[in-house]
Parts: sequence; C-alpha cells; structure tokens
Amino acid sequence: MTSMDRTSLTRLPHLASSDRAELDRLLDDAVVGHFAFAVDERPVVMPTAIARDGDRILAHGSTGSGWMRVLSSGVPASLAVTAFEGLVVARSAFESSMLYRSAVLFGGCEPVKSRPHKERALDVLTEAFLPGRVVEIRRPTTRELAATLVLSFPIVEWSLKISTGWPDDTEDDVTGPAWAGLVPMSTTVDGAHAAPDLAAGIPVPASVRALAGRRSPP
Amino acid sequence: MTSMDRTSLTRLPHLASSDRAELDRLLDDAVVGHFAFAVDERPVVMPTAIARDGDRILAHGSTGSGWMRVLSSGVPASLAVTAFEGLVVARSAFESSMLYRSAVLFGGCEPVKSRPHKERALDVLTEAFLPGRVVEIRRPTTRELAATLVLSFPIVEWSLKISTGWPDDTEDDVTGPAWAGLVPMSTTVDGAHAAPDLAAGIPVPASVRALAGRRSPP
Repeated sequence: MTSMDRTSLTRLPHLASSDRAELDRLLDDAVVGHFAFAVDERPVVMPTAIARDGDRILAHGSTGSGWMRVLSSGVPASLAVTAFEGLVVARSAFESSMLYRSAVLFGGCEPVKSRPHKERALDVLTEAFLPGRVVEIRRPTTRELAATLVLSFPIVEWSLKISTGWPDDTEDDVTGPAWAGLVPMSTTVDGAHAAPDLAAGIPVPASVRALAGRRSPP
Repeated sequence: MTSMDRTSLTRLPHLASSDRAELDRLLDDAVVGHFAFAVDERPVVMPTAIARDGDRILAHGSTGSGWMRVLSSGVPASLAVTAFEGLVVARSAFESSMLYRSAVLFGGCEPVKSRPHKERALDVLTEAFLPGRVVEIRRPTTRELAATLVLSFPIVEWSLKISTGWPDDTEDDVTGPAWAGLVPMSTTVDGAHAAPDLAAGIPVPASVRALAGRRSPP
C-alpha cells in the first residue's frame, strides 16, 4: 500500500478535510495523542501528551521509557489526535454518531537532542498544557534534561475528519415520533486543589487561574 | 518480543494496576478507543467509539470502511483507551504531568455475525453512549444491519496505568516559591439542540435529559 493509499484509508468524502488550518486547530486544542508503531512486527498503541510546534508535533517522556526509545529510533509510526465533542442523536441507532474531530498522521519521530532545542521544546509542551506556566517555575536542570526524551514528529502526511453536525435521518424517520438533535460536550476545569505540602501564603498562580475559566474540547 | 514483554512495555511500577475492576471502570467511562494495526507492515492508528460488554470491547462501523474490514480479519491489533482527567501541576516542569487513566490491550478483533448477536451488540453500543436510548427508537432494519460491521475485541492481554495524584517535587522545590496542586477536569454536557427538521411537539427524550445532568471523565 502506498503512502497515498494509507492516508486515504481514513477518508470518508463527506467528512474529510484537507484544511491545514483546521488540522492545526485540532492539534492545538488536543493535549493527548496516540502513537502506533510496531514492536517485533506486532502493533502497539500508546497515549501521550502532545503539543504542536509549527510543522511538527512534540512529545516527551522519560529516557527510561521503552516505548519512547523505540519511537525515537525513527521507526514508522502513526499518530492519532482525536477530539470527542458530543453526540449526534439521530432518530435511529444507525444514523446516530459522534461529534468529533480526528486527525491521523503518518511518519516517524526524531529525538530533539541539543540542549537549547530540548529546553525550548519542553517550554512549548509546558505552555501547551498550562499557558503562562513557564515564567512561574524554575528552569530545568541539566540532570532533568538528560533524563527527558523529547520527540519531534513532522506534520507531513495526514488526514483529517470533522463530523458535520445534524443527524441525517431518512424521510420516514423524520416524520416519525423520535427526537433528534445534537448534544455537544466539552472539557471543564473543576477548580484547583493545592498540594498538601504547599507552603502557607503561596497563591494560586495566574496560569492556573486563567485555566479555571476555560472550557475546551477534550 | 513475547506478549508478556509487550504488555510490560507499558508498565511503570508506581502507576501500573492489575485491577480488572479498575480496567472495567475505565472502559465503561470511555467512549473512544484507538486501534493500532498494520497495513502492509506500516502501523496505522484509528479512533473509534467503543463499549465494554463483559469480557469484550465492541466497536462498529460501515462495511464500507477499509480499516474496519482490515481489523475484522483478525490481524494483530492493539487498543488504547485513555481518560484525560486533568493536570498535575508541580513546582517544576519536570515533575508536572497529567491526571489520567490509560489502558492498552493486545489481541485481535472478531466480527459479530449472526443477526441476534449483532442487534444486541449494537444495542450495547447505543446504550453506552446514551443510556436509555434503545427503547426510544425503532429497531434496526435488515438493510442497516447488513451495512454495519460489528467488531468484538476480547479483554485478555492488557495493562493499566492510573496516575496517582499529587505532585512529587524535590525538597528544594517544596521549600521554593512555586505553587503546586491538581487541576481536575471533566467532560460536561452543553445542553441539547433539536435538529432543524424536528417536528413540532416532540420533547427532549428522557435519555438526553438524563445525560444533561452528567459530568464524567472524557
């Protein structure tokens, strides 16, 4: 199967989008991605935190992580980034579905190696999860950087699907008695809970306060 | 790599759980899973709606879906089910992480073929996404059943990781100025929006009304 075939495997004409801006919006909204790769010819899938940085996706983990080390060797990989955003409630089970945005990318990871690039990549990851956090905390130490594997996955070959909204029931069903509609869902922040060992007098920082007001897709 | 090695690839001692009840709780809370498999020896990952049914996980799609047909042939597959549930905000980027629950399963799918088994499996899926919906809608037609592929993935080989909560900062950081804590997040339902073609006088059904009051992990 050529790479073109592989990408088009994920395409349904009425849902597919080739809009890079829409892809970026999904990658920027999402905090979790799922990497697939092979270990001794058997497929493995692993979830991990991700952040987009221009034309690449960053991930990170411990240098002690076996699967991160496999990925960092550049083996063929696929990365899915999915936002579940609610239910499309049709008048039949058959037409019912989910509100979602979903990207599948193909390629391979490269490790980010030099100290300045690694530090910058980790800052991008930190800011993606908690914007404004980098200036509130100390810089990473040499030891921490050495213990961290940073992976870069280029955004080259990808497909994007965005569910299109209202249910598409048959005429018979539309005139029937069942309800139909959309039930959108989003992720909400349920407050901030100070660590039990937090010293007295340290207030909730601006980054966390700003997050508390946000609602976003999962 | 033996299957034992493959499963333990996902284990970190302080996070791993072998508690089947915890696995089931995650599988029951989640609505999306990510399947990994190979197409011409290249890894592919695909998101899809899932539901647990006893000792198996169900998924479904169109008989026209290329990747669902690949999976239904029983090729080796891996399935990740992940619940992102917030942020662990430590005093350093290094110790910061996510609140999550994550399962990775290994095995292969079987198609559910006989009509009664297929109907029942589709009911399980419908009820998993929108409890109470099955009795509100008509039964699937012969044509709809023929156009639907139902996959069953047995829960046999799996690993489970559950993040354990409070940040684990170094002593130096604990006595420093930075805040630390947890920021839990959950999925909330943002109301129900009737389809534009909904006939007058059809009320929001009990299934959707019940969902509106629910908060759950994504």
